[in-house]
Amino acid sequence: MSARKAPATAARRPAAAKKSARSAARRKWVYLLHEGNAAMRDLLGGKGANLAEMTRLALPVPPGFVVTTEACNAYLAAGGFPEGLWQQVLAALVKVERLAGKRFGDAANPLLLSCRSGAKFSMPGMMDTVLNIGLNDEVAAGLARLTGDERFAQDAYRRLVQMFGTVVMNLPVEPFEEVLAAWRARRGVANDADLEAEDLRAVTVEFKRIYATRTRRAFPTDPLEQLRLAVAAVFGSWNGKRAIDYRNAAGIAHDLGTAVNIVTMVFGNLGEGSGTGVVTTRNVTDGAREIEGDYLTNAQGEDVVAGIRTTKRIAALADEMPKIYRQFAAICRKLERHYREVQDVEFTIERGKLWMLQTRDAKRSAPAAVRIAVDLARERLITRAEAVQRVRPEQVDYFLHPQFDPAERKAAQARGDGIAAGLNVSPGAASGILAFDADTAERWGRDENKAVIMVRPETRPDDVHGMLAARGILTSRGGRTSHAALVARQFGKPAVVGVLALEVDAAQRRLTVGGRVLREGDAVSIDGTTGEVFAGALETVIPDFEDPHLLTLLGWADGLRRLGVWANADRPHDAARARSYGAEGIGLVRTEHMFFESERLPLVQRVILARSEGERAEALAALLPLQRGDFVGLFEAMDGLPVTIRLIDPPMHEFLPGHDELQRRVTELDTRAALLAERGEALGAEAEAERAAKRDLLGAVQALREDNPMLGLRGVRLGIHMPALVRMQVRAVFEAACDCARRGVKVRPKIMIPLTAVSTELKVERALLEDEARKVLKEQRQRLAYQFGTMIEVPRAAIVAERIAEYAEFFSFGTNDLTQTTFGISRDDAETGFLSEYLSKGILLRNPFATLDQSGVGFLMQLAVERGRKRRPALEVGICGEHGGDPASIDFCHRAGLDYVSCSPFRVPVARLAAAQAALAAR
Amino acid sequence: MSARKAPATAARRPAAAKKSARSAARRKWVYLLHEGNAAMRDLLGGKGANLAEMTRLALPVPPGFVVTTEACNAYLAAGGFPEGLWQQVLAALVKVERLAGKRFGDAANPLLLSCRSGAKFSMPGMMDTVLNIGLNDEVAAGLARLTGDERFAQDAYRRLVQMFGTVVMNLPVEPFEEVLAAWRARRGVANDADLEAEDLRAVTVEFKRIYATRTRRAFPTDPLEQLRLAVAAVFGSWNGKRAIDYRNAAGIAHDLGTAVNIVTMVFGNLGEGSGTGVVTTRNVTDGAREIEGDYLTNAQGEDVVAGIRTTKRIAALADEMPKIYRQFAAICRKLERHYREVQDVEFTIERGKLWMLQTRDAKRSAPAAVRIAVDLARERLITRAEAVQRVRPEQVDYFLHPQFDPAERKAAQARGDGIAAGLNVSPGAASGILAFDADTAERWGRDENKAVIMVRPETRPDDVHGMLAARGILTSRGGRTSHAALVARQFGKPAVVGVLALEVDAAQRRLTVGGRVLREGDAVSIDGTTGEVFAGALETVIPDFEDPHLLTLLGWADGLRRLGVWANADRPHDAARARSYGAEGIGLVRTEHMFFESERLPLVQRVILARSEGERAEALAALLPLQRGDFVGLFEAMDGLPVTIRLIDPPMHEFLPGHDELQRRVTELDTRAALLAERGEALGAEAEAERAAKRDLLGAVQALREDNPMLGLRGVRLGIHMPALVRMQVRAVFEAACDCARRGVKVRPKIMIPLTAVSTELKVERALLEDEARKVLKEQRQRLAYQFGTMIEVPRAAIVAERIAEYAEFFSFGTNDLTQTTFGISRDDAETGFLSEYLSKGILLRNPFATLDQSGVGFLMQLAVERGRKRRPALEVGICGEHGGDPASIDFCHRAGLDYVSCSPFRVPVARLAAAQAALAAR
Repeated sequence: MSARKAPATAARRPAAAKKSARSAARRKWVYLLHEGNAAMRDLLGGKGANLAEMTRLALPVPPGFVVTTEACNAYLAAGGFPEGLWQQVLAALVKVERLAGKRFGDAANPLLLSCRSGAKFSMPGMMDTVLNIGLNDEVAAGLARLTGDERFAQDAYRRLVQMFGTVVMNLPVEPFEEVLAAWRARRGVANDADLEAEDLRAVTVEFKRIYATRTRRAFPTDPLEQLRLAVAAVFGSWNGKRAIDYRNAAGIAHDLGTAVNIVTMVFGNLGEGSGTGVVTTRNVTDGAREIEGDYLTNAQGEDVVAGIRTTKRIAALADEMPKIYRQFAAICRKLERHYREVQDVEFTIERGKLWMLQTRDAKRSAPAAVRIAVDLARERLITRAEAVQRVRPEQVDYFLHPQFDPAERKAAQARGDGIAAGLNVSPGAASGILAFDADTAERWGRDENKAVIMVRPETRPDDVHGMLAARGILTSRGGRTSHAALVARQFGKPAVVGVLALEVDAAQRRLTVGGRVLREGDAVSIDGTTGEVFAGALETVIPDFEDPHLLTLLGWADGLRRLGVWANADRPHDAARARSYGAEGIGLVRTEHMFFESERLPLVQRVILARSEGERAEALAALLPLQRGDFVGLFEAMDGLPVTIRLIDPPMHEFLPGHDELQRRVTELDTRAALLAERGEALGAEAEAERAAKRDLLGAVQALREDNPMLGLRGVRLGIHMPALVRMQVRAVFEAACDCARRGVKVRPKIMIPLTAVSTELKVERALLEDEARKVLKEQRQRLAYQFGTMIEVPRAAIVAERIAEYAEFFSFGTNDLTQTTFGISRDDAETGFLSEYLSKGILLRNPFATLDQSGVGFLMQLAVERGRKRRPALEVGICGEHGGDPASIDFCHRAGLDYVSCSPFRVPVARLAAAQAALAAR
Repeated sequence: MSARKAPATAARRPAAAKKSARSAARRKWVYLLHEGNAAMRDLLGGKGANLAEMTRLALPVPPGFVVTTEACNAYLAAGGFPEGLWQQVLAALVKVERLAGKRFGDAANPLLLSCRSGAKFSMPGMMDTVLNIGLNDEVAAGLARLTGDERFAQDAYRRLVQMFGTVVMNLPVEPFEEVLAAWRARRGVANDADLEAEDLRAVTVEFKRIYATRTRRAFPTDPLEQLRLAVAAVFGSWNGKRAIDYRNAAGIAHDLGTAVNIVTMVFGNLGEGSGTGVVTTRNVTDGAREIEGDYLTNAQGEDVVAGIRTTKRIAALADEMPKIYRQFAAICRKLERHYREVQDVEFTIERGKLWMLQTRDAKRSAPAAVRIAVDLARERLITRAEAVQRVRPEQVDYFLHPQFDPAERKAAQARGDGIAAGLNVSPGAASGILAFDADTAERWGRDENKAVIMVRPETRPDDVHGMLAARGILTSRGGRTSHAALVARQFGKPAVVGVLALEVDAAQRRLTVGGRVLREGDAVSIDGTTGEVFAGALETVIPDFEDPHLLTLLGWADGLRRLGVWANADRPHDAARARSYGAEGIGLVRTEHMFFESERLPLVQRVILARSEGERAEALAALLPLQRGDFVGLFEAMDGLPVTIRLIDPPMHEFLPGHDELQRRVTELDTRAALLAERGEALGAEAEAERAAKRDLLGAVQALREDNPMLGLRGVRLGIHMPALVRMQVRAVFEAACDCARRGVKVRPKIMIPLTAVSTELKVERALLEDEARKVLKEQRQRLAYQFGTMIEVPRAAIVAERIAEYAEFFSFGTNDLTQTTFGISRDDAETGFLSEYLSKGILLRNPFATLDQSGVGFLMQLAVERGRKRRPALEVGICGEHGGDPASIDFCHRAGLDYVSCSPFRVPVARLAAAQAALAAR
């Protein structure tokens, strides 16, 4: 990595490499700043290209030149400078001397240089920088004379020695720091800035001794030697471990190489007429149209960042140096217009002269990103389409969920209250007191109106009432599509699941994490956007979805997208919310979710456990008006828009009590009875009754049990097996539709049959259900347009889509299940198990349950679209799996020719933007 | 259905149908026998085409004509005779009269006709026949005069009235039978044959009265009217319920229609010079080259079949009527040579003249089929390829398994001992005493050498020792690929599973079926070929695989097939058996099957439950020599042939005790302890120790539990998660291979990695394992050719096969799993559940776990072959799922371009034949 190693490496290179290096001698390795421009990022790196661009724009940039990324790659390949490089550096240096009016190594009028890395993509702090190159004892003395500032010159000199030692020669920083500390102690001062010139001269001497001892050679006094070694060090830093790790993490290619920027030093620390600052051309927190940032007088760049001295707001510069400020503000405007983007710039003022040291696109918060994009479009700097492309879909999500106050989060982290992290399955932040079961959560949350976080090992359908009453959900098990995650997203409750570090002891009403114990009623905070869990209550702030810039941007997005955006919603309230967020239809009503409500569950259980068709019919008759009521509410909320109602899908046992708990209780009672009988005693009448009832129930649960319920009796299979149940559902849909239509509501029901694998299933089921639909319409003397369709959620359905389309008027991809069966991976088991192992080992780059697996699952989707439309050209195709709200997946859906995506109400705005971006990307 | 209904139907037909009927008037609806030939089955039906062919061959066939299937379809479409049909019938009748030298309805010289249905495919007994058409009072009197046999004529007449009434007019048969019974009683005789002419005349009078009363019209005395109504009745019978049900069951199309054969009656019941018989041209039981069958003198055709009189062997005819016999034997030879196939013929001798009434290809037993095919080829009647095509693969299976003696089976059924039926998952018959658990089965079967049938609700891996000691396996649950089925097939044990009618009470050691109770030790017989279960011990016969005809046929098949035939075998004994049956390699060694053996299971459990890597390494080290020994045996058995070793596949919990039983025991002990504690007592030390151990174990089992284990931590996922285990397996393989190679055994190891879904999985796993392999080879200083490959058993693997082939040198389709994931159906849950419902409702026509689903699973297989070979042209592709032994699936594998199929050793001969047939079909 260090320059010293380079020759050794070069010696081991074969002749071929040397030859290719020779043939490269004619290449242009070095560009003066005025020879480059912003488009040359590949060759000059981001920083160098922008310096060149600013030079081209005649902005005050210190003279300099850039050694190209190609030179770096040639160096790394050959293990040494390629032929011609050094000659070109020297030639450029002569020109820079002429432009700067100073000479490198000339004690009478010295030119000092900075030498900085600069890759195509920013890798902050990952590579090397050396400043003040060109100083030695004589030049330092000359600089002192020239500036009349002995202390400044000595400080610059000791900094060079220290930086050169640590950066170029890889020495540890501690010996240098110890010298400084000793001098501060000797002088009784706190800061290096308070050391005198004499002190610093002595420091430099000691620094050079450290250098000589540790490197076994003297500090190079020849400025050209300094420059040469510095350039080699920057090259070498491209393959430093830090840099490689960073690139791996950021997904940057390893063969890009870095450029080296060699620029004339300018100094902001030459007295009160000097200064330095870092600003953005607009406010990057809220997007306001004002220059924002900080500066310091009599300071160097790193002082602004280091935070040792209190910086001043940039506005103050207008008072302190009004002329400079005006010049600077004009430059900022010019840069923004030129780059058509908000810039993040660095500047230095050296004795009243402004120098621009860097410009680049500014990072920004979510609300700033939205406002800036809209403002730039309104200012005609960019088009509306560009504005839509400038905002990341996740930045829209910000507006939909509470967030922790950033300062509070930082403080909590500092206190060590960040106690664990899990899967960030439902975004938003929430604080509250811990409740360990659904009933407690409901009592505290609904009845006593407390903020509650419900915590469970994992949730089950009968926990839903507690989840609804809680502010957030926390579980130690389960994955991205666990029950807890699905329900939480559905209702926009922040949730963190699969926090394996938590030991949840529901019986003892406590959770343990690390050594820490939290009990019921203790405060906890969860961030469903990041997956973090904090002890204690953090304050939350609630952004505003009605932000006018956001609404404007989404309006533009709507005009640009082809994909429809629908929502998955089971209740009228969710449907209304989805509509307010811009949903154009309901793509998925999970009818069974309503079955879990406490008044219905007993009825549903009676349906399942019925001993005769008569008994079953009775229970279904009692369910009918309840289910009808659900649909009335949905049709009203979606008046005029399509509502896709999926018939019952999950296996029956989900509606019954859990097997293990039941077996445990039965065994307990059996054992007690046996033991008591041994002693001539008997179980009480109440316990005997419970035993008989639970035994019966256990028998029923066992009869319905499956080894792999995900691949079992569910979906259309259930409908075929128990036709009375789905008939009731269809009756409820059509009675509700007729009722609404009579009152002037425009209804567009779409009946969706889940889990089709064989076209005959659909043929048989549709015939049965359409018969029921016609019966209702006849009874009600109504006419209604309606459709029958199916989910495509097993691979076979996609493959035989042409035959299935004969009986389906629409397809909707259930990509959760389709991903499970295509991979042969059970999502619930895997996401906290081997799937996370796969992700951490890099076997999978993305969780296929979060982002669509395009080569596998996507292939089947494309096949289904193509084959389905072959049979039925007007076939409507959508997606209602979790992927419908994921931007990368939405992009794929656009390309695959889907008609719409359907996602949770809270993802609708995100999907609107993502759909527009997909359309723009495909242009 | 009856002719009477036709006019009513016709009245409802629209004008269009009538018009098309008119335009059809010019069509040829009727063929004289000498106008047709055997190729005209579509038009003339099977019977008519063969009668025509025999006529063409100048064999003695009574004159007649055929009304075509097209006429039938036109009749059914129009609801009445199409125009021109009746005229053509009358014209044909005139020609028949001329040929027969008799006249229809002419009392002086009467022609009588039979009118029989005859469809393209035989539908025995499903449609209508009317004999003796043309009789009325006058003609009957004339016939009596002409034959000099009054009784014969009256008998013919009363038969006509009865048949006409029941068949054409749909009258019940009982009133007719009652009249006959009354006359028999009056005369004191047992058989109708003993009634006198006078009696029969009176019977006819009474029959005509019944006819008139019930049909409200007189019995038609006009022979043409009789004929017309009979033809219409035969047409109508095509759409009778019986016929429709039969076609549904046999998979015959409903739009074929039936022809009507109208043929001059000849009579075998005109005295001792007459007779009738049914024979096959060779012995269809053993295939011997001899005419075989029965005849009766002075009898009609149905008398031979009815079994009222004792028939004579056909050989006796050589003595009784030597000239006729010689003529008949020559005809049989001629027919065989002409049809190039053994024939089943009917003949009648009328007063010394031989008439041929029918010929068709003869049905035959499995051994006869094999011998006949080989003999016909040797006689040069057919080619060897045709011989190979003549035997159904299932007929080869016959030679590999014990069978019940057919007479015993019939007797048992008659006794009502056929107590239930289930899935026929492993062929062969077995009898023995019932054992309700594996230990009992082993004690009785192995130690006491009794014939045992092991019965369980379902089996688990730890039942294997009992299954091995038993003669057969019977379970009340589980499907075609349940544990019991897989193991049974593997070891060639007859098995019937999923017998839902059985209530197996293992605790009480009894099973209940219907009202019947069988206890442990009671005898039972199961037929794994048919799925039948019998109470009591039925005698079995063991066919001979060394049958020289079979070996010849399979040798011919081997020369014709392109597909290799390999076997799935886990133990040396199975491998040797497979090789003796002709296997050319081992396509699947399930390494984990060896883990279930009693000495190993504790070691495997120690591997799983290890609390440290050190502990695990220790347990693995103990397993290594055992596993190495397995492979040594396999390599020795397969010397020179490839052995494909699949690394551990199933989820870990399969090696641990069952959860429910464990939980029950822990709860029991906990409850006892609590109850005792309430009374100041304590659990004994032994119970306390058990409680602690079981609690620990339960915790471990719960930690490994998955909601959907089929989609869980198994296959390559397990290998990546617990690399030490698969490393040990690979070490064992290569140490064994080196050991064998050193002793001169030719080893060809192929390491197969299961359940790949993502190419990176294979990349990582292969690198790990090949490293271990190289290490062993280096230690052992050996060189060996070996391969690494993968199973393709989830849809994604097929889709991304091109990338997977980068790391796989061979593919093997695991179609059991691939079917599960392609359909999204759990085989174990479904086969006794909704899948059987689907099959019975016709939603699926075939069980996709038995016969490959070509449009879904097959599509993915073709895709994988194509994409895999794109990356690696020499990629070897096989199949090792259950389908590898199924003939229809083998045909698909041939067409899909696979290199081999691998199946259980007992299916190898079947697969050899099926592979040859596939190659011939694709020519």
